[in-house]
Amino acid sequence: MCNSFNKKFLDEAAKHWSSSEEKNQEQVDSFMKEAIDLSLKGVENNDGGPFGCVIVKDGKIIGKGNNRVTSNQDPTAHAEILAIRDACSHLDSHQLDGCVIYTSCEPCPMCLGAIYWARPEKVFFASTREDAAKSGFDDAFIFEQIGLTPGERNIEFRQMGRKEALQAFERWDEKEDKTEY
Amino acid sequence: MCNSFNKKFLDEAAKHWSSSEEKNQEQVDSFMKEAIDLSLKGVENNDGGPFGCVIVKDGKIIGKGNNRVTSNQDPTAHAEILAIRDACSHLDSHQLDGCVIYTSCEPCPMCLGAIYWARPEKVFFASTREDAAKSGFDDAFIFEQIGLTPGERNIEFRQMGRKEALQAFERWDEKEDKTEY
Repeated sequence: MCNSFNKKFLDEAAKHWSSSEEKNQEQVDSFMKEAIDLSLKGVENNDGGPFGCVIVKDGKIIGKGNNRVTSNQDPTAHAEILAIRDACSHLDSHQLDGCVIYTSCEPCPMCLGAIYWARPEKVFFASTREDAAKSGFDDAFIFEQIGLTPGERNIEFRQMGRKEALQAFERWDEKEDKTEY
Repeated sequence: MCNSFNKKFLDEAAKHWSSSEEKNQEQVDSFMKEAIDLSLKGVENNDGGPFGCVIVKDGKIIGKGNNRVTSNQDPTAHAEILAIRDACSHLDSHQLDGCVIYTSCEPCPMCLGAIYWARPEKVFFASTREDAAKSGFDDAFIFEQIGLTPGERNIEFRQMGRKEALQAFERWDEKEDKTEY
């Protein structure tokens, strides 16, 4: 009896596990569909480039964005940046603890940097930097440039005034009431 | 006489060149001082981290920013991002043509990405990513992570749904009234 109880228990658990995995996969698919829908609507509405993003916490969308670079006249208005700002404003936090990002394309270096600063749990992405490059977006080129030293880049980067600038780090290090991040 | 005229002309030109070089250097110094002052004021006011930035066009500051990550609850509110948004709004453009960026610290990967999208003429920076890292900022770590493939990073990046997402690039490629950038 003990064995048959165990078997029944294990069968039930397996069924539950399998249906919750399926449900989970359905949810993942539907969130990515939402991100892709945003990318399509953005093109249709002339908001900017073909990119969309949603951010999910506890099974609910808490932030959305689609590229608005040209309509907002803002080169930082990428889908992920707008979605991160939206989600953080919703959470009243500068961190995306326990959040999952769904983005229609592999994040560019700017958005990747923003993702690292925001520290979500996981990122799902659909198309790649090479797909973006084929449609005229500089993602792959910027990835290359970021790996170079300042002196090697195709935009001129010149260092000056380090000694004076270090004062700000000294003040920061000494500051007792600072909010670290 | 012809020779003495030439000598006088060349002397004058050299004097003018040297004084305009000096004036130029004074201006460069004063713009960097402005960026550093913003970084110091930001610490004092508890706006966020110790970073400041100004953007200059035709000898005038047209955009400013200091880090406001914790006060704005926005992980993207770095000095450079805020200054770029400010300058673009001033210029009514998503590009920083002919602009020079002065930033108190070497830009992090997010800001570097934003700089590439904004395409300014030149960037002056003062302290380095290593200086930032010493005061607890993740810049150097994020530079390392960005160079890795999605599967190697310490945040989980997973690809899915590429085929569906490619539709947005197809629509973009076909679109006749798009605003490219």
